[in-house]
Amino acid sequence: MRRLLPFLLLSALAALPAHADEGMWPLNAAPKDRLRERYGFTPDDAWLTHVRSSAARLTVGCSGSFVSPTGLILTNHHCAHRCIQQLSTAERDYIARGFYAAAPADEQRCPDFEIEQLTDIRDVTPRLSAATAKATDERQHHAAEKAEVARIEKECVGKDAETVRCEVVPLYHGGAFHLYRYRLYSDVRLVFAPEYSVAFFGGNPDDFSFPRYSLDFTFLRAYHHGRPAQLLPEQYFKWSPSGPSAGELTFVAGQPGSTARELTVSELEYLRDITLPNRLILIAELRGLVTEFQHRSAEARRVSGDLMFGLDGAYKGTVARYETLTDPRFFATKVAEENALRQKVAHDPALAAKYGGAWDAIERAQLARRRLRKLFSYAESDNSQSRLLRFGRMIMRAADERTRPDGERLAEYRDAKLSSLEQEVVSAIPIDDDLEVLFITNALTRMRADLGLDHPFVRKVLGRESPEELATRLVKGSKLKDAAVRRTLWQGGRNAVRASEDPILRFVRLADEDARAVRKQYEDEVEAVVQRNSELLAKARFAVLGTSTYPDATFTLRLSYGPVAGWEENGRQIPPFTYVGGLYERATGRDPYALPESWLKARERLDPKLPFNFAGAHDIINGNSGSPVINRNAEIVGVLFDGNMQMIGGDYGFDGTTSRSVAVHSGLILEALAKVYSATRLVDELRPPAR
Amino acid sequence: MRRLLPFLLLSALAALPAHADEGMWPLNAAPKDRLRERYGFTPDDAWLTHVRSSAARLTVGCSGSFVSPTGLILTNHHCAHRCIQQLSTAERDYIARGFYAAAPADEQRCPDFEIEQLTDIRDVTPRLSAATAKATDERQHHAAEKAEVARIEKECVGKDAETVRCEVVPLYHGGAFHLYRYRLYSDVRLVFAPEYSVAFFGGNPDDFSFPRYSLDFTFLRAYHHGRPAQLLPEQYFKWSPSGPSAGELTFVAGQPGSTARELTVSELEYLRDITLPNRLILIAELRGLVTEFQHRSAEARRVSGDLMFGLDGAYKGTVARYETLTDPRFFATKVAEENALRQKVAHDPALAAKYGGAWDAIERAQLARRRLRKLFSYAESDNSQSRLLRFGRMIMRAADERTRPDGERLAEYRDAKLSSLEQEVVSAIPIDDDLEVLFITNALTRMRADLGLDHPFVRKVLGRESPEELATRLVKGSKLKDAAVRRTLWQGGRNAVRASEDPILRFVRLADEDARAVRKQYEDEVEAVVQRNSELLAKARFAVLGTSTYPDATFTLRLSYGPVAGWEENGRQIPPFTYVGGLYERATGRDPYALPESWLKARERLDPKLPFNFAGAHDIINGNSGSPVINRNAEIVGVLFDGNMQMIGGDYGFDGTTSRSVAVHSGLILEALAKVYSATRLVDELRPPAR
Repeated sequence: MRRLLPFLLLSALAALPAHADEGMWPLNAAPKDRLRERYGFTPDDAWLTHVRSSAARLTVGCSGSFVSPTGLILTNHHCAHRCIQQLSTAERDYIARGFYAAAPADEQRCPDFEIEQLTDIRDVTPRLSAATAKATDERQHHAAEKAEVARIEKECVGKDAETVRCEVVPLYHGGAFHLYRYRLYSDVRLVFAPEYSVAFFGGNPDDFSFPRYSLDFTFLRAYHHGRPAQLLPEQYFKWSPSGPSAGELTFVAGQPGSTARELTVSELEYLRDITLPNRLILIAELRGLVTEFQHRSAEARRVSGDLMFGLDGAYKGTVARYETLTDPRFFATKVAEENALRQKVAHDPALAAKYGGAWDAIERAQLARRRLRKLFSYAESDNSQSRLLRFGRMIMRAADERTRPDGERLAEYRDAKLSSLEQEVVSAIPIDDDLEVLFITNALTRMRADLGLDHPFVRKVLGRESPEELATRLVKGSKLKDAAVRRTLWQGGRNAVRASEDPILRFVRLADEDARAVRKQYEDEVEAVVQRNSELLAKARFAVLGTSTYPDATFTLRLSYGPVAGWEENGRQIPPFTYVGGLYERATGRDPYALPESWLKARERLDPKLPFNFAGAHDIINGNSGSPVINRNAEIVGVLFDGNMQMIGGDYGFDGTTSRSVAVHSGLILEALAKVYSATRLVDELRPPAR
Repeated sequence: MRRLLPFLLLSALAALPAHADEGMWPLNAAPKDRLRERYGFTPDDAWLTHVRSSAARLTVGCSGSFVSPTGLILTNHHCAHRCIQQLSTAERDYIARGFYAAAPADEQRCPDFEIEQLTDIRDVTPRLSAATAKATDERQHHAAEKAEVARIEKECVGKDAETVRCEVVPLYHGGAFHLYRYRLYSDVRLVFAPEYSVAFFGGNPDDFSFPRYSLDFTFLRAYHHGRPAQLLPEQYFKWSPSGPSAGELTFVAGQPGSTARELTVSELEYLRDITLPNRLILIAELRGLVTEFQHRSAEARRVSGDLMFGLDGAYKGTVARYETLTDPRFFATKVAEENALRQKVAHDPALAAKYGGAWDAIERAQLARRRLRKLFSYAESDNSQSRLLRFGRMIMRAADERTRPDGERLAEYRDAKLSSLEQEVVSAIPIDDDLEVLFITNALTRMRADLGLDHPFVRKVLGRESPEELATRLVKGSKLKDAAVRRTLWQGGRNAVRASEDPILRFVRLADEDARAVRKQYEDEVEAVVQRNSELLAKARFAVLGTSTYPDATFTLRLSYGPVAGWEENGRQIPPFTYVGGLYERATGRDPYALPESWLKARERLDPKLPFNFAGAHDIINGNSGSPVINRNAEIVGVLFDGNMQMIGGDYGFDGTTSRSVAVHSGLILEALAKVYSATRLVDELRPPAR
């Protein structure tokens, strides 16, 4: 790492940010110059308006796009999963068997599904600056800002609340504020979904990897007043039946959720040395426990199936982040970028006075974080996976907090949050005794090992029992497994909770004083310091770089670009396309490599050389699922549904040499609709008329 | 880390090494000046000779000391554990019940136990330089060196092979060679051992921690020609009944095994970012699996008990090393030390030409290591814990390798190693089917996740089976569980092995070509490069620093020093002593906090304020177990048996602010012998005559 630093420092100073094809660009700040210089392509305003209007945001947390004049929407199967599940019944399992509305009337409305189409972006920074100009302290500033944002959004919506949504988006961590105006569709219907087994072919083992063979797409349709939305030609993308070629410039117009590319080096070190490895160790041990737990019985396997799936996914995502931060080349880039910005700030006395101390303040907060983390972790941030401990604590704390004025409560117990907490606590979620004992025993054993038997907190909560004895006593003796008991305690408030002899409640109360004390320390010495100084750094960055760079992701529309391309991994070249033939070779008939009947039957009708999935050098992140991949003509060449492991590390910074998006090929979708599913109506809607 | 660097760089340049009380000093290079300056104590030659002659080395891998004129030896219970176990029978379980030879004739000889007493150290560097002066290449150099070492050792032993042992010790990684001459005692007898439950009180949870309450001592006796050894007053330590006081300067005269304090920063980064976290993750998952496996049945608990104990210990040791390397202050010190040495080398053209490139070469080798590590880990360095895979592979490889000339074989299959390999393979070690399936399934699942389903090696060894299917088929179908079958195959050699249809043998053969290929790459691109350049760096270090610093540990006698002292941990002050009263408070009656009958009965006879264990700021490492802790008068004040977590990180460098040794108090030993065990004969032998 140290050897690379001087070289990278120079290049970082020369051009900040340094990477080709990096960036999630707002549509009103598209990198026209970079595109022209690198690809000889300059998007004009009509092109950008077309892209902006044809992209869609799914409020469920995904991206999508309009692909026909009658409101057809392309997104991922996993983005529509909840809708498909909600529409399913025991007799009609659309998850297992797929869904196709052969006639328009068969399209079924998704409960709680909303889709937004971006119609305008406006800079409202001056209005907010004016509104907050007279504030004399932080509290006044925030109040004034909040009020002005509400005014702007209200004016923007006007009288069209049913079809218009407006949102003031803070960009560059508050360096600028832009008003995003959307056309809202709240009647969204399911049109087509393939079977889960082919949509999520490869399951967890293939997730975040490539080569890949997942048919992860779904079609929805936007309705207005009970009829399909009518769109102008610049409000939807046309379909490319041939898809992209290797090396071709393509664009992703999606809604990346959030990135943390502006963390300081000391924060990244903390993540690299403490947070991520400790999370991996924790997940690994839990995974070992649950894997073997599943051998106890069929029931044990049933109650822990979802959990295992979640642990596997969390493990993969964390490994990816960890590998990014322990890549010496990557880390050296972050160090170089920070040093470059520090130098620019240091050389400008005005900037230095305002922002120069922020990095060191954040570094000192990381030392406090190290000091507090073990007690904080065991006393306050329950990571046991035990539902009983979680519920017990929520009941106990809510009862106490509700006796305080709203403004003085712990943040998660303010009035605005209480009803969703109550919903969780009183829900009829099943609780398995054996799994509870396992998790609590594990958490207590870890606590004893990490803090030591002689730590006052350990002595207090463990007493003279062994972890397993204590866990067994708590679980066997608690009535909190019963949702009705939880409801009674929640409603009974402080007196009911204090009067209860439930061992779980007594246990969480025993820990509460220390837990609150260490939380207070953590908030004061770590969180407040980091927040205050991160805001300063965002301002410093904006002062130096302005809009020559892109803001961190905010789940708003962004344009990324790059070629269709594989990458080199450990000396092996990964090609950018997979093909139908490879799908059939990979299918072993065993989950998660088992194909549905429809695909087994269609094998002879499909060309094995037809591209299936493809990889692209796009800068994307969670939230980009369902994004359209388009070519220079703004035609759909694929639907993005995943990225490789290196993409996940994009949380911290983009590495264009290895980070890749993964998409379903547009030609494959047409072929599958035609030859596997006989979805003629959809094929006709998508296929451009013969010339 | 970066903030601290400039300051530390300066201090490192000023005085290298920088830490007070750091160092494991050879007895002929004691740090007299440092001791005088810091403690006003200057050991004279008589003192040093006394210490050298009274310290003992246990060839089992421990330290000890002579403590009476008739050859009584003080060491740890855990150092004599094997002897105590070997002398036990079903009727007389000395591990559980302890051992005391009430009369001289009751002392029992330990099988295979040897004790060495250092009688002389001589510098033989000039002889070796002369012997290797004419060598023109590396091979000649090594051959000449090896021959001269053998000559020196043979001359040194002379005709007294029965009672003299000589060893040429390379110090400073070959910067100097010293001849160590020992008086050898090969008749060693057990005199006294407490019960295991009090000797290892606190078990794994308390291991590497403090406060501590372990009675980890044992007495042995050296015999010569069937009679107790007769020692001069300068050949044994006298006993201090009062022990040390807080803050008192004390010395540890022991045999630290090995340290790696001269690793480069790039090697430490590799350890920090790759080796240690991955080991922790692996152990954590195995620990989870085995913890839950133990719930399957009493038999499952029995067959996996040792394994669980080993995993817990390995986990703790690895955590300690990891915490050391992720401590920003510690790492900054290593960076500063390396930079200081690099600068000194860079400023001397002769040194720069010879050694200047070594750091970068080692750093490049770390990049190769990163590239190769995953395949190397799964194909070549079996970390599955499966005994069947291990045996299968040894049988298959030994059969192939034995057909080659000795010099061309893989190192572990040379003739000199074959018989111990054979012993392991044909031993009647029990193999549990369920545990084997569990371990192989886990290893295959990890491999598939880490390398990806599309890696050619994964495709080859996994085929179309799921990890669990393959593991079950291998284990259920293999006959290698039978030691007789293993013996037949081993003796049958290549033809027998090739003819075998055993699924385990077929599986390991399938992987063998790739395994050998990646091993070859690893040896060439990583190991050879690191070894060659580490030797250069050792020479550079010796050229710059000479003997002003101490050499890495070599399991030879070293003197460490420092005060009896606690430390501050996370804002909590850990006091240096524990007391008898605390032992009884800690005893819950549950393993590992259950006291033996003898201690429960003696409670009323013991002063609760009597010190039990104490901590000292000594620079120690594995191998120091059993070391005498002595005061300025060279009196025994304790016997060292452990260190805290920070001590383990001493592998990489000493941090005098937190690293601590842990010892049993000399006064407690006398009291226990007198009041718990009524071991009058021993008390009389140890207690100094009343004045």
